Amino acid sequence: MKGYMIFTGTELLLGKTLNTNSQLLTSIFAELGIDLHKIITVGDNKKRIIAALTEVPNDVEIIFLNGGLGPTEDDLTKEALLEYLSLKTVYDQQTLDKILKRAGKKALPGDLKVAEIPEGGIAFYNDAGIAPGSVVKGNGKNYFLTPGPPEELAVLMKNKIIPYLKENMLGAEKIHSRTLKFAGIGESKAEDKIRDLIRASNPTVAPTIKDGEIHFRVTAKGEDWNELEKMVSDVSEKIIERLEDYYFGKDDESLESLVAGKLTEKKLKIAIAESCTGGLLSHTFTNIPGSSEFFDRAYITYNNQAKIEELKVKKSTLEQYGAVSENTAIEMAEGVFAKTNVDLAISITGIAGPSGGTIDKPVGLVYIAFKYKEQISVVTRIFSGNRLEIKNKVVKFILFEIFRKLKED
Amino acid sequence: MKGYMIFTGTELLLGKTLNTNSQLLTSIFAELGIDLHKIITVGDNKKRIIAALTEVPNDVEIIFLNGGLGPTEDDLTKEALLEYLSLKTVYDQQTLDKILKRAGKKALPGDLKVAEIPEGGIAFYNDAGIAPGSVVKGNGKNYFLTPGPPEELAVLMKNKIIPYLKENMLGAEKIHSRTLKFAGIGESKAEDKIRDLIRASNPTVAPTIKDGEIHFRVTAKGEDWNELEKMVSDVSEKIIERLEDYYFGKDDESLESLVAGKLTEKKLKIAIAESCTGGLLSHTFTNIPGSSEFFDRAYITYNNQAKIEELKVKKSTLEQYGAVSENTAIEMAEGVFAKTNVDLAISITGIAGPSGGTIDKPVGLVYIAFKYKEQISVVTRIFSGNRLEIKNKVVKFILFEIFRKLKED
Repeated sequence: MKGYMIFTGTELLLGKTLNTNSQLLTSIFAELGIDLHKIITVGDNKKRIIAALTEVPNDVEIIFLNGGLGPTEDDLTKEALLEYLSLKTVYDQQTLDKILKRAGKKALPGDLKVAEIPEGGIAFYNDAGIAPGSVVKGNGKNYFLTPGPPEELAVLMKNKIIPYLKENMLGAEKIHSRTLKFAGIGESKAEDKIRDLIRASNPTVAPTIKDGEIHFRVTAKGEDWNELEKMVSDVSEKIIERLEDYYFGKDDESLESLVAGKLTEKKLKIAIAESCTGGLLSHTFTNIPGSSEFFDRAYITYNNQAKIEELKVKKSTLEQYGAVSENTAIEMAEGVFAKTNVDLAISITGIAGPSGGTIDKPVGLVYIAFKYKEQISVVTRIFSGNRLEIKNKVVKFILFEIFRKLKED
Repeated sequence: MKGYMIFTGTELLLGKTLNTNSQLLTSIFAELGIDLHKIITVGDNKKRIIAALTEVPNDVEIIFLNGGLGPTEDDLTKEALLEYLSLKTVYDQQTLDKILKRAGKKALPGDLKVAEIPEGGIAFYNDAGIAPGSVVKGNGKNYFLTPGPPEELAVLMKNKIIPYLKENMLGAEKIHSRTLKFAGIGESKAEDKIRDLIRASNPTVAPTIKDGEIHFRVTAKGEDWNELEKMVSDVSEKIIERLEDYYFGKDDESLESLVAGKLTEKKLKIAIAESCTGGLLSHTFTNIPGSSEFFDRAYITYNNQAKIEELKVKKSTLEQYGAVSENTAIEMAEGVFAKTNVDLAISITGIAGPSGGTIDKPVGLVYIAFKYKEQISVVTRIFSGNRLEIKNKVVKFILFEIFRKLKED
């Protein structure tokens, strides 16, 4: 089955936006075995979108259009497809209800336009946003309209459009895959341990790196679901066995939600003292619905005075060892533990940069202390990257450390 | 002058590589005022590359081909262009020397192929790699061959190709643009106020939405820099005048860096008490290098006990009005202000969802209190979206409120 993609958006032609949707959609096509013929990117220009549609070769059956489904005047993708196929629109009732419920009588005509899909098409309700996706047939082809915001596209593809494609468009060959997630190990080291599996062709094993995690996606092709499940499971087991110390979860499981689940399950409470991460660890935990079950409180003590006043860090410790030191990290964690009634206190002090580094204490140096049920431990690491990257890596590291602690526990 | 881009690489069609070259080249085109007609992405397939070349409209004068200049069998871009234009090749002597010097007698025919450029063309020597870029004329168009590795492309564009374009290809028409940034107003409402300007063609006004902000990019085309500057300024002034209450900055200015700049300039210190935003406001402030100048500390008081212990919120207040109430927000801000030595104390309490909402206090309801130099004020808002979206919108709202306060001050 041959495929084609048309991305619309003047911001893509002006270099304002990096087209990450392209990577998402092409990797999905690859996984589903849809042979992608070509990708076209045009501006928010109805004539050029129609011209792109006109150029699609006869033997292409699946055409994805991405972007331009919003309420503004330069959202023209749907209009272009409607004009090209000479179709009218109908409202997707579920989306219309959502818009009217949100906006009430203040709904503008542009807002309502978003709820329209091509007549004769099928709507894919957008759980992560407003503009629905849709598919409509015409000229013996299947045209998919998909929303531009990356997080909306990801959710819609996963929950609605991939299942639709599998059910309705793909032949006897079935595809099954699983993503295994690892942290605390470098990419080349991880790949070296499973080189033979990466070289195999069915199942395939494809690595991706994301926010300090390594993911291996195991994908098998064949005609029988049970057999596919067994093929994927067998290779997955081998990978996990060889990288056991670094494995934390699969598919939708995120490190933070796994840690949150364990904390809730074990009825453990945590409190945090952050310096260089400046609130990011707390933000990460509190993004999880229900985090009030285990998250007690946090102190963002950015300067020495705050560390002394809030956490009872000794002035002499700060003077003798500095704010970025093992001793300060320990006293911060002890301070939080003493003030609260939690099971686990975590403290972080370090140099996020770009300035503030010295030869002895370079940018990226971070001390992290854990006080867990009367036991204190400290780890020291040097993280690389810019300010935000260092903050992100510290948080990922801490989550994985807690995950390991709770697994052993 | 009209432009066109053709990216080649099967890895781009399989989702293995994120096309960052596209953003680099499109932003360079935008800056140089080359009007990009379309972007095509095809695999390493000579026939399809030639087909893409055939489709280029007559009025396009600058065509960039990116990728496929290496020594391997699937590097076919140059071959496709040669075949399409019926051209032979010549060696770029400087590149040939480099290859022979590096490989000595072990140089393979494929290695030498890399040093070839189209006959009649001009080579751009590659300081960061081996394969040179080149430009050749044909059919009244200028075809640029550029290397795929992003770091090679960046260096080559900067040092060789941009200067070449400026010197040889760009005519009298110049382009000038400015991005104006707004917050605290919905997209459709903002657009309604400047509809006539959005419809105009020179300067153009293009809206984009990002993280709760609305940006309008004003772009003028013409032949005289002074005139362009005046055109852009005139329209910018009109836009700012009509949306004065919501304007905060232009181009590279971010809301957080503007607020941080004002705080530093006025030598003001801030401290924060976060409940429903869970650390995101602190994280946002501490992302700014130098934030230790104004950021004193923060308390993430997630439960009632923490609010009482850390911020001296009265138990009776929590019982009578609830944790999510104007009274609690005020007491939180007062508590922070009393405990610290700051000029501005901010408190946030609300319901980030997805659960916890009631009819009286729905998900998204947030109370924000500001204690600024002895004066207290509270605002109440209902934000829409999922948990993370609500957190983001609250933070953006607070930044904009502080921005307004400091502007008046």
